Amino acid sequence: MAEQHVYTFGNGIAEGNASMKNILGGKGANLAEMTNIGIPVPPGFTLSANTCVYFYQHQDQYPEGLSEQVQEALNKTENIMGRRFGDPENPLLFSVRSGARVSMPGMMDTVLNLGLNDDTIKGIIKQSGNERFAYDSYRRFIQMYGNVVMGIDGEKLEILLEKAKEKKGVKLDTELDALDLKELVGLLKERIQELTGSPFPEDPKAQLWGAISAVFKSWNNQRAITYRRLNNIPDHWGTAVNVQVMVFGNMGDDCATGVAFTRDPSTGENYFFGEFLVNAQGEDVVAGIRTPQPINNVGKTDDSLPSLEEVMPDLYRQLVEIYQKLEHHYRDMQDLEFTIEKGKLWLLQTRNGKRTSKASIKIAVDMVQEGLIDKKEAVLRIDPQQLDQLLHPMLDPDAPRNTLAKGLPASPGAACGEVVFSADEAEDINEEGKPVILVRVETSPEDIHGMNASRGILTARGGMTSHAAVVARGMGKCCVAGCGDIRVDYGAEFFKVGDTIVKKGDIITLDGSTGQVFLGTIPTIEPALTGEFGTFMEWVDEFRRLQVRTNADTPHDSTVARNFGAEGIGLCRTEHMFFEEDRIMAVREMILADNLSGREKALAKILPMQKSDFLGIFTAMNGLPVTIRLLDPPLHEFLPHTDQELKALAQSMGVPFETLKERTAALHEFNPMLGHRGCRLGISYPEIYAMQTQAIIEAACELVKEKQLDIIPEIMVPLVADVKELKILKEKIITICDETISRYGITLKYMIGTMIELPRAAITADEIAKEAEFFSFGTNDLTQTTFGLSRDDAGKFLKDYIDQGIFARDPFVTIDIDGVGALVEMGVSKGRQARPDLKVGICGEHGGEPASVEFCHRAGLNYVSCSPYRVPIARLAAAQAALKE
Amino acid sequence: MAEQHVYTFGNGIAEGNASMKNILGGKGANLAEMTNIGIPVPPGFTLSANTCVYFYQHQDQYPEGLSEQVQEALNKTENIMGRRFGDPENPLLFSVRSGARVSMPGMMDTVLNLGLNDDTIKGIIKQSGNERFAYDSYRRFIQMYGNVVMGIDGEKLEILLEKAKEKKGVKLDTELDALDLKELVGLLKERIQELTGSPFPEDPKAQLWGAISAVFKSWNNQRAITYRRLNNIPDHWGTAVNVQVMVFGNMGDDCATGVAFTRDPSTGENYFFGEFLVNAQGEDVVAGIRTPQPINNVGKTDDSLPSLEEVMPDLYRQLVEIYQKLEHHYRDMQDLEFTIEKGKLWLLQTRNGKRTSKASIKIAVDMVQEGLIDKKEAVLRIDPQQLDQLLHPMLDPDAPRNTLAKGLPASPGAACGEVVFSADEAEDINEEGKPVILVRVETSPEDIHGMNASRGILTARGGMTSHAAVVARGMGKCCVAGCGDIRVDYGAEFFKVGDTIVKKGDIITLDGSTGQVFLGTIPTIEPALTGEFGTFMEWVDEFRRLQVRTNADTPHDSTVARNFGAEGIGLCRTEHMFFEEDRIMAVREMILADNLSGREKALAKILPMQKSDFLGIFTAMNGLPVTIRLLDPPLHEFLPHTDQELKALAQSMGVPFETLKERTAALHEFNPMLGHRGCRLGISYPEIYAMQTQAIIEAACELVKEKQLDIIPEIMVPLVADVKELKILKEKIITICDETISRYGITLKYMIGTMIELPRAAITADEIAKEAEFFSFGTNDLTQTTFGLSRDDAGKFLKDYIDQGIFARDPFVTIDIDGVGALVEMGVSKGRQARPDLKVGICGEHGGEPASVEFCHRAGLNYVSCSPYRVPIARLAAAQAALKE
Repeated sequence: MAEQHVYTFGNGIAEGNASMKNILGGKGANLAEMTNIGIPVPPGFTLSANTCVYFYQHQDQYPEGLSEQVQEALNKTENIMGRRFGDPENPLLFSVRSGARVSMPGMMDTVLNLGLNDDTIKGIIKQSGNERFAYDSYRRFIQMYGNVVMGIDGEKLEILLEKAKEKKGVKLDTELDALDLKELVGLLKERIQELTGSPFPEDPKAQLWGAISAVFKSWNNQRAITYRRLNNIPDHWGTAVNVQVMVFGNMGDDCATGVAFTRDPSTGENYFFGEFLVNAQGEDVVAGIRTPQPINNVGKTDDSLPSLEEVMPDLYRQLVEIYQKLEHHYRDMQDLEFTIEKGKLWLLQTRNGKRTSKASIKIAVDMVQEGLIDKKEAVLRIDPQQLDQLLHPMLDPDAPRNTLAKGLPASPGAACGEVVFSADEAEDINEEGKPVILVRVETSPEDIHGMNASRGILTARGGMTSHAAVVARGMGKCCVAGCGDIRVDYGAEFFKVGDTIVKKGDIITLDGSTGQVFLGTIPTIEPALTGEFGTFMEWVDEFRRLQVRTNADTPHDSTVARNFGAEGIGLCRTEHMFFEEDRIMAVREMILADNLSGREKALAKILPMQKSDFLGIFTAMNGLPVTIRLLDPPLHEFLPHTDQELKALAQSMGVPFETLKERTAALHEFNPMLGHRGCRLGISYPEIYAMQTQAIIEAACELVKEKQLDIIPEIMVPLVADVKELKILKEKIITICDETISRYGITLKYMIGTMIELPRAAITADEIAKEAEFFSFGTNDLTQTTFGLSRDDAGKFLKDYIDQGIFARDPFVTIDIDGVGALVEMGVSKGRQARPDLKVGICGEHGGEPASVEFCHRAGLNYVSCSPYRVPIARLAAAQAALKE
Repeated sequence: MAEQHVYTFGNGIAEGNASMKNILGGKGANLAEMTNIGIPVPPGFTLSANTCVYFYQHQDQYPEGLSEQVQEALNKTENIMGRRFGDPENPLLFSVRSGARVSMPGMMDTVLNLGLNDDTIKGIIKQSGNERFAYDSYRRFIQMYGNVVMGIDGEKLEILLEKAKEKKGVKLDTELDALDLKELVGLLKERIQELTGSPFPEDPKAQLWGAISAVFKSWNNQRAITYRRLNNIPDHWGTAVNVQVMVFGNMGDDCATGVAFTRDPSTGENYFFGEFLVNAQGEDVVAGIRTPQPINNVGKTDDSLPSLEEVMPDLYRQLVEIYQKLEHHYRDMQDLEFTIEKGKLWLLQTRNGKRTSKASIKIAVDMVQEGLIDKKEAVLRIDPQQLDQLLHPMLDPDAPRNTLAKGLPASPGAACGEVVFSADEAEDINEEGKPVILVRVETSPEDIHGMNASRGILTARGGMTSHAAVVARGMGKCCVAGCGDIRVDYGAEFFKVGDTIVKKGDIITLDGSTGQVFLGTIPTIEPALTGEFGTFMEWVDEFRRLQVRTNADTPHDSTVARNFGAEGIGLCRTEHMFFEEDRIMAVREMILADNLSGREKALAKILPMQKSDFLGIFTAMNGLPVTIRLLDPPLHEFLPHTDQELKALAQSMGVPFETLKERTAALHEFNPMLGHRGCRLGISYPEIYAMQTQAIIEAACELVKEKQLDIIPEIMVPLVADVKELKILKEKIITICDETISRYGITLKYMIGTMIELPRAAITADEIAKEAEFFSFGTNDLTQTTFGLSRDDAGKFLKDYIDQGIFARDPFVTIDIDGVGALVEMGVSKGRQARPDLKVGICGEHGGEPASVEFCHRAGLNYVSCSPYRVPIARLAAAQAALKE
């Protein structure tokens, strides 16, 4: 017996069901499912995706038995409808649509009104009593078929329609009458014969096979291939083909068509929500030419537009029953399409409805409370990335907009303000109380105060993990990075996009969630966390095993993160504090001193300031662990970049400019990423780490002694490549800590651990764990070194890599499991081998990215650490990872 | 019974032997061995190194039974000599010397003439009949003991000797007579009492225990610790102490002392070679105050200096017998110290003699032919590093020199010439026929023509693997790199060392084997490869299993390397060719083109030039495999660095300067090492790799077709991080190759493989091997990425790392076995798992470094590849690795 290739549905009986998406595609499986549960669905049949696979594997041949199975299915459908395909008296028309395992909206082809020819048109006229409707359907079919199946450029047929209107002196298609359209049908067919050398097929069966073959082939059209690549959909899946009886909402006033959501997709409120039009086709509702009417009275806002509830109360009641049945059946909010043909209601589609983040949460929480789903399902249902929307301002979706350029969506949220080009200006204008957008070619640590004073940041260079992106995410500010379209001219104080010039003081709006840049002000909507959000996050924490900490460098960020549920600080970068105005001078003095005593003098000035930072952070994190990383970036990062600034510095330091210039030049590095940084600084200049240790431990001691706080400091040594580095530094740190603790006369437990951010550290983790009490994987740097890829430079060619399918995703955004992940696993396993109770976390940008969080859970890490605004995302991703096990 | 701590030797019987170096130290073991084989050695005894270990482990306490064992050994020695320690009539004096398992010359302490006091001095006067000798020995003993054992600053005692001479109005020590010295003895003792509060110990036993303790303690003095760290000697070994009867060569004219080599240490010629002085101490021979006499008539050059053979023929005959016995016994050339005391010959030391490389080879080859050793031992005996000396000019060791500065010994050999500061000048002056030394802050690929025109290269910055170092080694030119002492002023055309100014045109001399820089001309000696070298290298190849290829980019280098025994090219860098004057313009045009057709136009100009390179290289390597790496460095490396050069380029390209400037700026990278380079260029600009593939394969086809040569091209894709990169590029390469081969109508086998130079490539080597036919480990870049360490920047802190013992050796020079090595092993094992016949090599700088070559052998690599001048070194290291298995 031949394999089953064709699955019928109709009249309450279907050969498939919702679980058969792999065979029937999403659309086909849902049509079958709806049929089975008694929903009125226009009958038809689905050709399986396997048929498509066979088609590709056998040079566009169909499998054996297919034509018989199609014929049988056709017969069954004809019997259900009591009409026949190609019957001039009472013909059936079909739609032929693609339907892959997952939705690929608009990527593949569709043919509607299939079965029309010069004979069957008569039957349609008879059925509909509407000649104009019939000829309009016919000419649409010819155009669509000519384009999709016969491969004719759509423009070449559309022009005949234009000519017909011209000839008649009208502007709208609707102004053409049945006769005009009939004439057009003839002209279209002639033109097709001219263009292809063959007549338009009159035989409905030939039409059907042509359409099936065209849909199969559209699986491999260029836009479908690109879409699959972008969405990680395997090429070998293939698409199913759905052949379904056409029903028409535009045959007269007893016809209608509409779309509806079983709950409000924007707020999640539990009421039936939708729109419809009388005597219309599906696309008319969406196209916005006629104003759609509300589906029910609850949704009414305008009294002049009667609702379906009012105009067709019986059909409305049927629809309500159906939506309730569907929502209960699918246990999720549904997005429905329906058509009323001559007083009969048909459901054309149901699927889980798209919704805003806010609605997602509300619907999930409500459904648990309604007993429709359990907490576990609620938690699994929310895409962690969606939470971002809840935590940041967003553009008013209804506001008009004028897109200027597009960069990377580097930090979510939306903001508008005056354009400025320097951090100092940002601060000045912010102080005047005006919102500011800082525009830079790229940012550096020197710009932090300006970023802080801005509503949003726009950079021309840099990727998703560039300085601007990382810092902005940490601050919860919106950022569009790597916007290659803009050309910044600092000197003339403008930027250019094509020919558009945006000057200092002009207003722009950024959408950091999409990477778009707009001219002028677009209103934004502030986020408001609802009670449902709190309830939902409580459930999340019930399932979660991985801890979530935050990366925070200030008391303010620490408090924000704690409010978002952070269970400690996983990464406190001491260097960000160095840039603050009151201390950068002392830091520069320290760096430019050419001897130990000079450095020690400058460090003595920095000590009390560093200590005060830690007092604030420790207080905010009272009772929770705080991991503090000792100085990491190369010293030259703290120096001025231009001669002018350097001259000012020389003057204020009372040192000749030439000396400073020479010392700065000596600090220059070819590859600063691989240079004199991290613990290498601690080895060369032990006095720097000594000062920082002193500041950390004195702050902790003081709070324990004077305020009886519970301080849990974890001192972290960065960029260790060899255990000996850690051993040498650890001894020095312990000496200072123990001496200080005993001076305060208190007891205080502290830990000393290390970043694992170099391949060599992961490879020799067993040795390193002999000295380290904890590991924190710095997967930003680990990704850079494992790939030999600078995240600041990768932007230039990352696109080539994504386009050619080499990287499925930017490895700086989602952890590369095969390479970097293998090193993380090696590090964990070797580390725990040497020290079974080793605490292991991750503090790279990956710590807040759901797929990476799932990896961390599987790899057995104790915690992830991420920027404050990503803490809820990481919590949810961690819970889902636990539930998926 | 107590453990044996003391081992006696004397009168033909010793308790130890040469195999007991771990217990007796090198010196003690050899003294025992010589005694056992009947060589006249002053008797004595050795305290074991374990005793020293015990001493340190027990707070400077001696083990139980030690004092009894020492007393017994003393008695035995007294009985042999028929004199007694501390006997005023016929006293014995002792030397007390350190002696570790391996020689640590001058690092630890020694006490001579021990046993002298106001009583025993009388016996010494009687024995020697020479009062002045006796008091001179006494005062020396007091000074040495005061300093070494009692811890008095040597200067504070030496000054009394100076005062004595001043008082007498003389200049030389020898002008003081016995009375003066006797008085000095009294003054020295007084001063010691003043300084230490204790009298100088008169009791010989107390003197002995003081000296033993001082020698033990000197194991942990600062210079010994540093020496051990630098030479990888474990701290826990401890030192033995040798207590040996003093014999004197300076008691009169029947006394003498000398040093001798059993063969000529400079040429290796097989004749007895040495020097001596009548009535002298050992240090007099070395110090050069008196001109030493030749030991035999063969060595006579000056008739006024009679030989030992002439003045003491009997003793000379004894010495000849002894040297022959020792050389046969040790089966190696010996370095002897002897003393004749009153007509009796004593041997004080024998050890394997240091020798030049040339002598090493000749001695090893001669000894095999004499049947003294076998080929295997001969091969194992030569330090591979030594071969460098044979292949490069060296400074005449006898020429006077004026050291100016010291940098890193980056490429061996010696050269002198006029200082120039630019590559173009180097070329100009070289064309005038004058030798040139190119002095640069650092070199870049743009300087290659100038380096080629120079005799030697001196740079202020950069390490052992900097551009200058790598290129110079490849060219076989001497190079001193990273010479931080020099300040180069390009503008004023001079460099400065301290206050010394060296101007353009001044002459300097470089010694690339030591890193020294000298003012003026120092004569150099040209290398001459002897027949023995050829014989030796033939033996080497008999044992070697690892193949040795070369890194060569030109026909000339290829030929040099082939003459040195290279078995193919492991790395041909196509980019070095890009810098040649006739093509750099086309290369720049290609880079600065902002579209594909612009690039293709420029590439079409480069194609014939690249092809001609490969024609030359393939011809030179006829019959051997040639691995060609496709373009690797980031494109900006090929662009001019200054605005001035850029303006010139703009003019000659007919493009506005601003455009070029902008394009250049767009190519700027923060971390070029991790940037848009390697196969990433091939992914972004497939046309570049297409052109290179075309050039390679056309060249190969042409030579096969027209000259019937045997060409074995291996095309290598650099910087692969993911197999997909290789897969994409490989397909394109195969298409071009196969199309070209079929166009020529020949058959040609070629291979496509990849560099493994990123951690991720090693980690995913199983995947990569599915596409790659061979792997070549690029351990330079792999070291950079595994450590997260830029070799261009590491110079600044590498010293801190070596000093603090974090790195035993520069990981760019010797492969880091625990980290980088682990990745190499992982890559080999995973790669062969996927493709059992995978060919695996290494082409980093490590390929020519003996310890790394040994690692490669153990890791199961098929070949190493290194610069031409290191090929013999790698061959020898590979043979030794095989023999050590």
